[in-house]
Parts: sequence; structure tokens; C-alpha cells
Amino acid sequence: MTTIEDSTVDDGGRVWPVTLDNWQDPPVNRWGFAHAEQIVPAAVIRAADPPPAEAASGAATDLAGLLVPLADAEVPLRSFLDVSSTDAFLVRDRTGIRYESYHGVMDRHRRHLLMSVSKSVCALLIGQLVDEGEVALSEVARAYVPELGESAFGTATLQQILDMTVSVDYSEDYHDPASHVQLQDRLAGWRPRLPGDPDTVFDFLASLRTAGPHGRRFQYCSAATDVLAWIAERVTSARYPDLLGERLWRHLAGERDAQITVDRAGFAFANGGMSTTARDLSLIGMLVLDGGTVGGRQLVPAAWIDAIRRGGDPAAVTGTAFSQVHPRGTYRNQWWVTGDDHGSLYGTGIYGQYLWVDPTAQVVIVKFSSLPVATSATWSLAHARAFRRVAETVLAAREPA
Amino acid sequence: MTTIEDSTVDDGGRVWPVTLDNWQDPPVNRWGFAHAEQIVPAAVIRAADPPPAEAASGAATDLAGLLVPLADAEVPLRSFLDVSSTDAFLVRDRTGIRYESYHGVMDRHRRHLLMSVSKSVCALLIGQLVDEGEVALSEVARAYVPELGESAFGTATLQQILDMTVSVDYSEDYHDPASHVQLQDRLAGWRPRLPGDPDTVFDFLASLRTAGPHGRRFQYCSAATDVLAWIAERVTSARYPDLLGERLWRHLAGERDAQITVDRAGFAFANGGMSTTARDLSLIGMLVLDGGTVGGRQLVPAAWIDAIRRGGDPAAVTGTAFSQVHPRGTYRNQWWVTGDDHGSLYGTGIYGQYLWVDPTAQVVIVKFSSLPVATSATWSLAHARAFRRVAETVLAAREPA
Repeated sequence: MTTIEDSTVDDGGRVWPVTLDNWQDPPVNRWGFAHAEQIVPAAVIRAADPPPAEAASGAATDLAGLLVPLADAEVPLRSFLDVSSTDAFLVRDRTGIRYESYHGVMDRHRRHLLMSVSKSVCALLIGQLVDEGEVALSEVARAYVPELGESAFGTATLQQILDMTVSVDYSEDYHDPASHVQLQDRLAGWRPRLPGDPDTVFDFLASLRTAGPHGRRFQYCSAATDVLAWIAERVTSARYPDLLGERLWRHLAGERDAQITVDRAGFAFANGGMSTTARDLSLIGMLVLDGGTVGGRQLVPAAWIDAIRRGGDPAAVTGTAFSQVHPRGTYRNQWWVTGDDHGSLYGTGIYGQYLWVDPTAQVVIVKFSSLPVATSATWSLAHARAFRRVAETVLAAREPA
Repeated sequence: MTTIEDSTVDDGGRVWPVTLDNWQDPPVNRWGFAHAEQIVPAAVIRAADPPPAEAASGAATDLAGLLVPLADAEVPLRSFLDVSSTDAFLVRDRTGIRYESYHGVMDRHRRHLLMSVSKSVCALLIGQLVDEGEVALSEVARAYVPELGESAFGTATLQQILDMTVSVDYSEDYHDPASHVQLQDRLAGWRPRLPGDPDTVFDFLASLRTAGPHGRRFQYCSAATDVLAWIAERVTSARYPDLLGERLWRHLAGERDAQITVDRAGFAFANGGMSTTARDLSLIGMLVLDGGTVGGRQLVPAAWIDAIRRGGDPAAVTGTAFSQVHPRGTYRNQWWVTGDDHGSLYGTGIYGQYLWVDPTAQVVIVKFSSLPVATSATWSLAHARAFRRVAETVLAAREPA
């Protein structure tokens, strides 16, 4: 029942019959009443029946006083968390939760918006579809979604889209109302619509123009993930939130449903709209740490996790703000790969969202924040350094003296 | 953390600082990122940490073939459920779940909109506030919410509002775009706004005019429950979804969070916006059956449950559609009291939502539906007769042969 719903029609073109005008009327009301959160909407990403809540492990480490680097100083972790507008902070390894703290209005049951960490979750689903032969990395997007036509994304391969090497006329300026990324916010229902906005995000994605040859330069473009989600829906005939639930979330042994915002066309905001608890997101990190397995079961292909961890093309990111922070860093399959000597990789979102995986230390770190600025190279560096210190500390505590 | 949030201001007047324009900006983003579902919004009504999922009881009764009355015939229950557009049907007694079935897109984990069964849940919260002395039934609403002034609701007592005996110029025609009830839908975000609509539901509620003396005639008016929720928020300085969570939901030993839609002022749609699972709603019925107790603990005052079960003023409902179906029925404290020889009472919502409590049979029935029409005396009668048959059957199966 979590694929295409009874009252909807998906006959190749994407027809979504539910509107704010009709959802209480038959036959749409059968769907509408069971999905009210999608009318004024955030879709549920269902977890399995929850296991008993997990206590922080007996091996928990009190990290609050741990000194971490900040600018030219060393400050206690608790101070770092405070000044970096932390909402939640969680450290996990294979023994369980090693440390967690919640701030402001957050607690361990509350979901927090992931922003672009959502992209890194999407990538795991795409890896499954590649493995199943549903999509091919060398194929161009219009092969799956003909509506994309000769647009920038229509003519790019899945690998280029995953790696953000599509050359596209797109402004990712989060603070500019005239930017494409703010236009996407409006189409997603995240900001009030303006006159002249396209009807749907599908129209918008198909309208984006190529700016040069694909595959050469890294260009971070949030729309890439929405194209991936569009392709995933098309090849599976299932809705994106249901795909995440059926293929990932319910296998994680997490505690809570996740959710993802949906626009007025019922299309999820794949590039940034997921919300999860800190605990549940850390299980995604463990999956990556464990080569795609959860509880010994291969959920995401090992080869896909390997491909992410090996990283992407260093030449593509030369000169970017990312490479200032991580000189040997690359971007691969919607993950940031640091190139550090621990093989660390991470997902990150604006205003300070992080899912950090340190394979050498065997540590996963989640940080939810509400920083006053969307992006900041200073804060990116500070977080990377703090996470490294935390991971090293947990590693050292684990090793025999 | 579940009362008034950090970044909000509630200084007597109701100030809600979160808008679609500012929620990603500091300082509001701290709140916004933790509550994305309220931006395009349905608020969580938090359950406690869930207990292990409950299986249908070993004493479960296969009711699918039970003959129930329908028009002039007797049909199997399964047929009744089918023709009455059932989404979920659940029968519970003190031994557990006796029967449950899910239809269409529903299953036991999915929340379904309660429509006006939401009103009957609100009443339990009001009973707590009465018991605590926060509000008095004989007091007029403007004593708590001065903004209501000389409006119909401002000049009505809480008891009159609870009993729907406020005389108000208000059209409850669900299918008329010019009706007040559709205007409320628009203000709640349930329908697209129209030019000239009031800015907020608060303006709207305060604008409703008196049509005659209060306290004499039953006049079903959805706005009544929104006034009750407004009062509850004012006297507790807490938001309505949090009140429901803290005071009711987390004590039920239910399985899932509930939710309630919120408008652009962050105000919950108390008269119809809750969604719950069928199992969890049945626990509200058990609370009523058990005199306000849950697991032996007095959650809602026994006197309040008694007052509901004793019913209201028969003269007030004379000549209404309700009294055609239930000739000895009355309306009391947002519950429909049938006056039948089982003392049955219920909450109901448009398009076929029911929470039915039969004290003699010691049975609770939940039915979620998506009927093609909002209201129908024919369907009201058919449901009442079918529920009675089901309750009698469960009672008979329980009694020693």
C-alpha cells in the first residue's frame, strides 16, 4: 500500500489528482483523509515497529569537557556546541550511543530538518536502483524522464548528476530572492509563491539551461537531487517518501518515522526536505560505516558504499570553498569525501546540519544546528576539526591502554 | 520544552513570530528547523515511548460475517464496511482488540483525519481545566479571551459553548463555498484563501454575531471548539497540540504520535484537524468507558465523564436531524449521547468518522471512512444500528453460555 495510491493515476506522465480544492471530495477524499499531513504537507517516512528505546551505552563517554579546536583556541566541546547554535549532537559507534546532547527545543524524539543531508540519504536509494539495473550511471536523465529533454539535467548522465558535475545556469545563493534555489524553495512551499513562478518544480527542472560541458567541474546545484528523485519515482512507479520508507527507513531499527516535505504536486523535496531524529540519522551513518549493511543484512550495495568512500575527481573541485577546507577532498554520489587519513566522509546541509562518518575511528557523528548563516567556510572548518577530535577521542577510549 | 517555544512571544496578546518568510532566518530558524511540519504544517501530538505493539487479542472475534442491519436488510459486516467507504474499523474491549480491519490506503500505523471527533477529544482537555479551576463552566468566554468581546462566543458561557447552545449567525454547510465553515477551512489552510478572507481565525471568531438568546437551542457550530482551544491556550500559556500531548496522548499507552493541522498563525484546527491511528483513538474511548482512568490512573476527572454520559438538555435538540436518529439523544460537552438503553455515546465527524462507546456492552468502536457526502441522516442511522449489533455480539460472546 505504500506505492502509488488507489486514487492516483500515474500513466507515464505524472498525474497527481489531489489539490487543496478537491481533497475532501470523492474520490480523492479517500486518499486525502488518510494523508492530511500532505495537504498542508509533510509526508511520513515510516520506520519499522520501534524496538525498545536504546539507552546511551554503558560505555558512554562524557565528552562535554573535551577540548576541541575553535579558531586559534581549544574550547570544551560544550562551548563549541553552544557557539555553533547546536540543536542536537550525537556520537555513535558499534557499541551504541557514546554521547548525545539536545539543546533549545530539541530532544531525542523530535525530528529536525536535515537540509542537504537529505541528498546523501537519496544517494543510498539511487545505489540500490543502480544495483538492481533500474538505472545506469552512464545513461542520461532524459532516458528515464523524457520531459527533461535538452535541458541541463536532461543531457547529463546520472553519474554527473550524482557528482554535481552538471554545468547548469543555476544560482545557489540562499540569501538572494532572485536565485534559483529560492525559487525552488517557493515551489516546494517553503516560501510564499511569487507571480510568474513556474507551476511545478517539474517545469522548473526541465527549464534549466546548460552552461557548458558536463563532467568537468563541480557545481553544487540542489536541483540535482530533485532530478534523481524524479528518476527514482519514474523507474519504480512509487513515490519518493515511500521509497525511502520501504527501502531504507524501515530496515534501520530506528525509533521514529522520518518525514519529508511535499509540494502541491505531492512531490517530495528530496534535496533538503527530510527531517529525522538525531538517533535515527546516526543509523544511516552506521550503514555507511558498515559497508551498506544493517544488522548483517546488505541493504545498500557494498560496491556503492565503496564507490562513495573512494571519492570523486579531485580536479573537479579545485578552487572551490570545499577544497579550501579539505585540500584532498572530493565530492562523490552526493557525499562529501574529505580525503583525510581517516577516510572521513559526510553529508551536510545549510545552517549547520551534519552526518559525519569516520571509518578509521569507526565513529558516526550527527549534528543539527540553526546557525545564523546558511553557509560559512569558517564554520565548515570548525566543524570538521571538532568532529575529528571527537572521533579520535572515542577511538582512543576504545583502544586497550 | 513542549509549552511555549523559545523563540515565541506570548505576552497576553497572541504573538506568533514564525512566518513562511522568516522561518529559515535567525532567531526564528531555531524553532523553524525543529518544526518543519508546522511550516507546511501538521503538528505532532506526542505519544509516550511506544510499548511493544499489541496483537489482536487471543479472544478476537471474527466479525466479518456478522449480520448487521442495513436499510431493510441484514448484511455481513464486511459488506456494510465496504458500502460505507470504510478506511478502518476497530472493536476493542477490556481484553484488548477484538476485531480490526483496514481498507484502501489505511493500515494500523497510519493516522486518519478525525474531523469532528477532534471536538470530543478537546472536551476531555477542557474537563481537566475545569477540574483544576483554570476555567469555570458558568463563565463567559470573553472573561478568558477579551478579544472575543461582544461576539456570539464572547458572550456565551463555557457550558453553552461545550453544549453547542450558542446562538450564532454561522452557516455549517460543508458544501457551500459561501458558508462560514468553508471560510474556516480556508483560514485553516484546508482550502485556498479567497480575497477578503479575514487575516486570522481569531479575527473571524471574534466577528461572529449573536443570532438570539444562548442556552436554549442546540446549534452545531464547528467554531465552538476553536473557541475552547483558544481559551485553553490562553489560560495555560501553552499551545493546543502540546496540551493534547502532555495531558492526554502521552498517558494513553498508544502506539503512535497523533497530529493536528495548524494554520499560518500556528493555531491548531481543534474542531477537526486531528489525525490518529484507529488503535490509538480507541484508547480515548476506553478512557471514557473507564470513567476517565487509564491503567487505573485518573487522567480526566470522573465527574466530567459522568457529566458527559448523563447527557444534555433534550429540549435543546428537539427537531434536529440528530434527534430523528436518536429520539432520546442529547448533546453534552462535545459528545453525542444517544439516550439508548446501553448508555451509548460517541464522537463523530463528517464523511463517516466515529468513536463509539457502549458502556453496557463495555465496547469501543472506531470507524474511519471516506464517505462521498459530508453528512447523511441515512448513514448516521445505519452506523448507529451496525455499531449496536457489533457491541451486542461482543457482549454476548463474553458472557458465560
